[in-house]
Amino acid sequence: SSPMQQRSYDERSEEFSCKKNIDAFLVTKDVNITYLTHFPASESWLLVGRKKSFYITDFRYFHEAKKGLPKGVEVVRYSKSMFDTTFELASQQKLKHIGFDDRHISLASFKKLKARCSQRVKLTTANNFIEELRQIKAPEEIQLVREALAIHAQALNYLKGYIKPGISERDLLLRLANFVKAKGVGFSFDPIIASGPHSALPHAKVTNRKVLKNDIVLVDMGIDVKGYKSDLTRMFFLGKIPPLVSQTNEFVKTAQLKAIAKIRPHERAREIDAEARNYLEEKRLGKYFGHSLGHGVGLEIHEDPKISQTSTAVIQEGMIFTVEPAVYIPSQFGIRIEDMVLVTQQGCEVLSDNIH
Amino acid sequence: SSPMQQRSYDERSEEFSCKKNIDAFLVTKDVNITYLTHFPASESWLLVGRKKSFYITDFRYFHEAKKGLPKGVEVVRYSKSMFDTTFELASQQKLKHIGFDDRHISLASFKKLKARCSQRVKLTTANNFIEELRQIKAPEEIQLVREALAIHAQALNYLKGYIKPGISERDLLLRLANFVKAKGVGFSFDPIIASGPHSALPHAKVTNRKVLKNDIVLVDMGIDVKGYKSDLTRMFFLGKIPPLVSQTNEFVKTAQLKAIAKIRPHERAREIDAEARNYLEEKRLGKYFGHSLGHGVGLEIHEDPKISQTSTAVIQEGMIFTVEPAVYIPSQFGIRIEDMVLVTQQGCEVLSDNIH
Repeated sequence: SSPMQQRSYDERSEEFSCKKNIDAFLVTKDVNITYLTHFPASESWLLVGRKKSFYITDFRYFHEAKKGLPKGVEVVRYSKSMFDTTFELASQQKLKHIGFDDRHISLASFKKLKARCSQRVKLTTANNFIEELRQIKAPEEIQLVREALAIHAQALNYLKGYIKPGISERDLLLRLANFVKAKGVGFSFDPIIASGPHSALPHAKVTNRKVLKNDIVLVDMGIDVKGYKSDLTRMFFLGKIPPLVSQTNEFVKTAQLKAIAKIRPHERAREIDAEARNYLEEKRLGKYFGHSLGHGVGLEIHEDPKISQTSTAVIQEGMIFTVEPAVYIPSQFGIRIEDMVLVTQQGCEVLSDNIH
Repeated sequence: SSPMQQRSYDERSEEFSCKKNIDAFLVTKDVNITYLTHFPASESWLLVGRKKSFYITDFRYFHEAKKGLPKGVEVVRYSKSMFDTTFELASQQKLKHIGFDDRHISLASFKKLKARCSQRVKLTTANNFIEELRQIKAPEEIQLVREALAIHAQALNYLKGYIKPGISERDLLLRLANFVKAKGVGFSFDPIIASGPHSALPHAKVTNRKVLKNDIVLVDMGIDVKGYKSDLTRMFFLGKIPPLVSQTNEFVKTAQLKAIAKIRPHERAREIDAEARNYLEEKRLGKYFGHSLGHGVGLEIHEDPKISQTSTAVIQEGMIFTVEPAVYIPSQFGIRIEDMVLVTQQGCEVLSDNIH
């Protein structure tokens, strides 16, 4: 059930033939290697050829890699350097054009690799190769996201019982962390628990501020199940809430509903962003919504597709992404409502619909 | 007490004048920004000029950055892109040569930055700029490492009570994790708890294997206190240990003592590595010691100096690094003994000397 075994080899070969004549692809980003091999890669490269793939690692990871990698991948231990070994393998396999993603290699590493390859082997920028595959989730990937969301729901439900006047953000975090650990999983990022005016900071740090009698609490968290992640933001309201806050909350909710209603295959991501953004602008709140509407979620907490004003992505069935319109009134309060959707044949399923 | 306020500005100006005529340095690595500013940087760049510094970030982090950064640093929010804003600031400040570290910028980002800068502003590779400063620890940095080690000692002491036949590696990890959390700190990396033959894997994953009556357990862990880290490996022996194992343990211990005895300012790092490595080779164990002898520890778990066969580092007072000779007999067992030393005027202090 590895994506590599399932489909990637075929798809890859197809893409190889149409994409810039590359006859191999050098994967230099850990999570992309993990996606293809199901092995928790670290400080390693994967050279994916048409017939054979090579996992290039050092002494420290060699034995684990031999045990953990699928059969189709040969584990090669480098001694001198990753660059030399990559070049040796390329020569040995008579590769002429190696594709790579220039966002996932440092300038220093590129220089070193190029110095070795320039004569017989050519390096060709071929970005987004693996990321494009990763956008469309396989059934077993969707299942893991659902599992993360199921635990997420339990965790929020547990936390809710403690969101009361007098408890500090930090104590809420400790409760949450203990619950999550007891479930045998981890967070997919450091949770944001932002009360009162702290909610106006899109990436607030958890502080010792205590929740007041009349207060709002923003909880942005995620659960990680076998590498696959959830990411939701929920608002909690205590006591009397000023009309401006509750009205803003309604506007953000409506903005989200309008955006979600627009999600279907072939729609442009930027049109979905615009749907929420234009509505908030109508309500004169547009200038308080400074980030994009959403982002893909999977092995990374932020991955493709981007749902933003400048995104060139087109929505496809099987994508999973967040929809998170927000309004941040500096020093006063912020409202963010974030759900996760799975794009279906006709529209989308809100995966977090029953999580309150 | 920020390194930036304390000393970096002066040192930096000095270095500016001698280093390749750069009149500003672009810091593109989060932890280096954190080192200079004490602000937990994320997805941001710091442009350090002779007179003024600029923290370039986006909407999401703008308000936190304004609150958290020292006075000397101006927070600039980018809208179009980090690259455009960096170039605009460079023009505005009439910068001609901006130094940067080519290991900490992707090829893609470099291309984008260069496309904007090439005419009036030159980009100059000036690697290791911040890393060189970071190698020498200030008193308050040493203090934080000591605090991490103090909690590390308590955690090991607590764990020891549970290392008994029948308990699994995973259960040991859970105990350890709960203890650490209760202390209000975190790990500096995923702990390695490797029992029996698992100890032969330098980076073993924690499994469900249960500790046997006669068994060895390797515990490699670290504690993080305000970003500063500990990193130690301890071996635990249960019941009857085969003579080969206990003899190997003695050899590794002696190798470590010999290396530590050689540590003093002006010594070459590679000579310290050689001291341990040559001794293990004498004992015909050299081929089972596949990694370097040690590494610097501070804001990162692996930082300069490298203590290895190929290291060009020269030891200086104030460096903190690990000394971790090891012997891994594949599929049988591994022994690694890892301590942390602080280089003093005459030699070194073993910071973890009293931790058993």
